[in-house]
Formats: sequence, structure tokens, C-alpha cells
Amino acid sequence: MAGDVPVNIDMIRAAAHRLSGHARQTPLLSSPFLDEIAGRKVLVKAECLQHTGSFKFRGAWSALTALPAKAQGVLAFSSGNHAQGVAYAARCLGLPAVILMPADAPAIKIANTRGLGAEVVLYDRANEDRDALGAALAQARGLELIQPFDHPQVIAGQGTTGLEIAAQARAEGVTNAPVLVCCGGGGLSSGIALALEADAPDMQVRTVEPEGFDDVAQSLAKGAVVTLPLRTGLCDAIVTPAPGKLTWPILRRLCAPGLVVTDAQVLRAMALAYERLKLVLEPGGAVALAAALFQPEALEGDAVIVTASGGNVDRAVFMRALQAGGEDADR
Amino acid sequence: MAGDVPVNIDMIRAAAHRLSGHARQTPLLSSPFLDEIAGRKVLVKAECLQHTGSFKFRGAWSALTALPAKAQGVLAFSSGNHAQGVAYAARCLGLPAVILMPADAPAIKIANTRGLGAEVVLYDRANEDRDALGAALAQARGLELIQPFDHPQVIAGQGTTGLEIAAQARAEGVTNAPVLVCCGGGGLSSGIALALEADAPDMQVRTVEPEGFDDVAQSLAKGAVVTLPLRTGLCDAIVTPAPGKLTWPILRRLCAPGLVVTDAQVLRAMALAYERLKLVLEPGGAVALAAALFQPEALEGDAVIVTASGGNVDRAVFMRALQAGGEDADR
Repeated sequence: MAGDVPVNIDMIRAAAHRLSGHARQTPLLSSPFLDEIAGRKVLVKAECLQHTGSFKFRGAWSALTALPAKAQGVLAFSSGNHAQGVAYAARCLGLPAVILMPADAPAIKIANTRGLGAEVVLYDRANEDRDALGAALAQARGLELIQPFDHPQVIAGQGTTGLEIAAQARAEGVTNAPVLVCCGGGGLSSGIALALEADAPDMQVRTVEPEGFDDVAQSLAKGAVVTLPLRTGLCDAIVTPAPGKLTWPILRRLCAPGLVVTDAQVLRAMALAYERLKLVLEPGGAVALAAALFQPEALEGDAVIVTASGGNVDRAVFMRALQAGGEDADR
Repeated sequence: MAGDVPVNIDMIRAAAHRLSGHARQTPLLSSPFLDEIAGRKVLVKAECLQHTGSFKFRGAWSALTALPAKAQGVLAFSSGNHAQGVAYAARCLGLPAVILMPADAPAIKIANTRGLGAEVVLYDRANEDRDALGAALAQARGLELIQPFDHPQVIAGQGTTGLEIAAQARAEGVTNAPVLVCCGGGGLSSGIALALEADAPDMQVRTVEPEGFDDVAQSLAKGAVVTLPLRTGLCDAIVTPAPGKLTWPILRRLCAPGLVVTDAQVLRAMALAYERLKLVLEPGGAVALAAALFQPEALEGDAVIVTASGGNVDRAVFMRALQAGGEDADR
């Protein structure tokens, strides 16, 4: 991998070739009711319908089909979407996968990750060092660590979403529109930005983050990485403290100013995705739709494209969205 | 239209041609967790992602693009999925649509139908005769009545779902499997059965109905139409009293014995579609999935295909499903 250009369009196209027939080409959905709220055509790339319920399967498949020859299996840290993507891709490819999770992770997440065929190793968040434990495991068993976003082949895999967006939007007659992307560490945003640069030069990525977790928006505004305190929030899938080392230079070069939405807007967007698209979105997967619907003045043009990046949401949170979003969605 | 054969495969292929680029080719989804419950591969045709949230858009588009030249517009009775399909297809085609709905229909359904561009005419269920009112309206304004299932071009349109199932299942390596179809009047079931007869002769339709509303299953068992009392139930979209005049001869000729599921199974299937597929299903759209998951002994082979025919469900009912289905889905 050249140090200067760790990810490029050729790698994304190669990843698309490896993903073909394995990842789903998710549909680009729309609803006249959402268009009316937004005041423009809203096209929704439904990555919640991807295997394991989020786009993360793409990056995992891409990385696992480009492993160094010496790798005996793979290792990931996470209790979330990345872990599920890695676990299922590994199972499909017949590779051992070890997922390192805190012992106090929800039982359902541990069960789901095991259900997808991974070996789950639990650690004590208070008394053990995750990174040291992971490094020791990786060395002892010949495992390759798959980072959730700062990994060239993961970014390339997520970028295949952008190739599909370019082609599917063109089929709908849309070639010039902002592309709103739910943004944590920036793997999906940077991958899509690279894909659009090549295949849809009149489309530009706008990252979308939840209020209080807008490290990428602040970084883009300042032109330098801003790091925020690490905390948790409603949009748990995307509450990273800072853009990644590999993703930041791409985001900085290619993205327009970042957008920031409130938790209330996120819950309303989830209720509207339920009502009008029949999709289950998790909070972190609904931020882009929230921006398209409730911040139309921040956008230009007669169409907007949004990623709906995941749907792995606890039942209690989903019901809260249906209750909170009720008034708007029923109007 | 030949009297003996009101619908045939050529009409379905012609409808597919007219629908191309207008109806969505909905995805065929799956989840390893559902496969495990069912004990075989479960492929889910996600028609809840069709325009207006159900397969009904297909039949509506098919009928509206094959209107007699004299028609000045279209008329439909219904407060449900058929009305929404007709309203939206008419709006896209620039045709006037009148939907006759009872004045006591839920406000949200009236608003939605108007929101899709139709003129809603309300009538008093107790004191007015819907059919007479409709006939008078149709004659006065030159409107063509679009029946929800007993209409050759509607059946042909629904049959396009079967053409897609045959092709998409083949792409997944499945050519021999039962195809479970949510069944009310039989428009979708009969259309799919005709399509499979031509394109996937080793796939046979099994109709699925809710307990207490199994007029088609009883009719198939008896070899003659059985009519049940008209009532309402959880699966409101498919609680018809008898198979249709046009659909019955097709169902009788082509379908294997009908399946019947309980309301509890339907609610659990809705919760699992939420959890594992990220899809919103209405009760009537979840009966086929319920049969695949909870009546595996009634099926043969290592794969089953199910239609998930619609997702237009009141929030309260959906939350009830999430609560009722909790134990199973979280296991």
C-alpha cells in the first residue's frame, strides 16, 4: 500500500468485484411523503438491508478477501455493527473470527455475534487493557486485526456503496445532488466520497453527526482534526471522538461542510422511515435522513441522497422513536 | 379477453414490461437467524418495500396502463393497500382517481390516500349502498372501476412478483421450493402461481391465511368455493370471505394445500422481520413468514420462499408485535 494514497478508486472497484454476489446491492428507496417534508426528492440508500443489518458487512468482506497470506483468521474489537459484519463475512468465507467484547456488553449482542459464527472473547473493561489483550491474542493465534474504519480495504469496501449510489441515482435521473452520509470514524463517508469523485463528480458527500458528537463537522470547519471527549449517546453506532487517521485526509479533501442533527430529529426520522419506507433504522443510521428532512435549508438543489446505514436497534429505543415521532408521522 | 382464460403468462409478461422502471424490483432477503428457526433457507420477497408499502401498486399500475380508451379516470373502493396503490399509480400517470371510503375510516388512511393525489369520496356505511354509489359515480364521470383482485390486469400485475421470485431465487441457487403467499382474495397468489408455472415449474404456491379466515385453504381442501362470514381481524389486509371468481380457478388448478397461522405466530413473525430483516411488516403481510418459521413440518425441501406483501401497519399494532414477539426474537 503506498503511504500517500492508502485507498483509491481502483481499490474500490476491485472490492466491488470481490463483493459481487456476496454483499447485497441494496435498493435506493423514496416516498412522495418524504419528498414533501424535505421540499425536494429524497433518495434513501437502504444499507440497513445489507447482511447483518448494516453497511459494515461490505468493509468486512473486502478486508477478509484481501488478507495477507499468513493470516490464520481475523480479530475485531466491538460489540456493534462492525463485529457482526466481520463475524458473518468470516463465517461465509470459512475463516476463524475472534471478537473481543467487554464482559458487560448486552447479552443479546454477545449471542448475536456468536450466532453469526464468531468466537467471542470477553474482557473486563475496568481491569484489562483491550488493545494489549487483542495484540497478544493476535500474535498467539496468527489473527489479523480488522480495524472498523482505519483500514484501507475496509474503506474500499464501504466505498462500494458510493459506486451503487452513483449508478442507481443516475437510473432515477439524478446526477447532481448532495449525498448525506451517517458519519462515525468516517469509513463510509470517505469511501463514498472517493467513489463519487470518480463516478458522480457532481455529487458531494456531506457528513452527518449527532449533536455533541460532531468531531468531523468541527474538524472540517477548522481544517484540522478536532477530538471530542469519548461518551455514549443515542446514536451509539457513530459516537467516535475523532475522524480516523486514514479517513480524515479524504474527508478533508472531498467533503462539503458537515451537518449536525438533534436526537429529537433522529427519533422523528426513524418514525418516518418506519411509516413511509417500511424500514427499521437505528439512531446512528437515521442521522442522514434526519438532516435531509429537517434541515432542508442547509442543502441545495432539487434532490438529496441519504444513506440509511444500519438497523440494529434495541426494541425499547425503536418504540421510543415510534412514540416520539408519532405526531409528525401521523400528520 | 378470452372467457376461458382471463389471465395468462403472456399478460403477466406484458405487465412486467409496462411496470419496468416504474414498480420497484424488490429484493429477496434472508437471515441466518431465520434459517435456523425454520430449519431451512428462508428467502423473503420484500414487497413491503414496493411503492405505497405493498404489492398492490403492481396490479394498479398494470390495470391503469391497460385501461379502455373511453376511461376518463379510475375508481376504487377500499381504505387500504389497494386504494393507495391505485391512487399513486394514477397520480404518476396523470389520471384522475376517485377512492370511495367509509366516512368512519381512520383519519390517517383518508389523509394518506389524499396525500397520494386521489379524490376521496366518503360515504355513510350504515345508510348508503357502496356499490350503487360507485356505479353512479363511475357512470357520471366516465370512471373505470378497478377491482382489488377480480380484475385480469390486476392479477397480471401481481403476477410480476412471481417472475421476479423465479429469477431472483435462481440467482441464489434455488429452483425447487414452496412459495408461501399471503392470501386474501387471491390476486397475488394466483398471479404468482401463473408466473411460476411458466418460469419455475418446480416451485408451487402455498397460500397462507390467518386462523378463522381460511376460506381459500378450506376451498382448496374441498375443491369448491367455501364462503366464510365477513368479519375483521388482526390481519385486516387479507380478511376476505371467499376466493375471487377469477382467482379461484387458478388457485384450484395450481396451488398445493393452503396453510393457516395463528395471530400469535403472526406477531412473532413481525418481531423477527423487524429484528433480523429490518423490515416493517403488517400482520397480513407477515402470515407467509409466520408459516415458514413456525410450521416447518408442513413444508418439504431445504428452502422456502415467502412473500412479505405489505408494511402498512398502525403504530400501536406494530408495538404490540414487538412486545409480544420479544421473548422469541431475543433468544
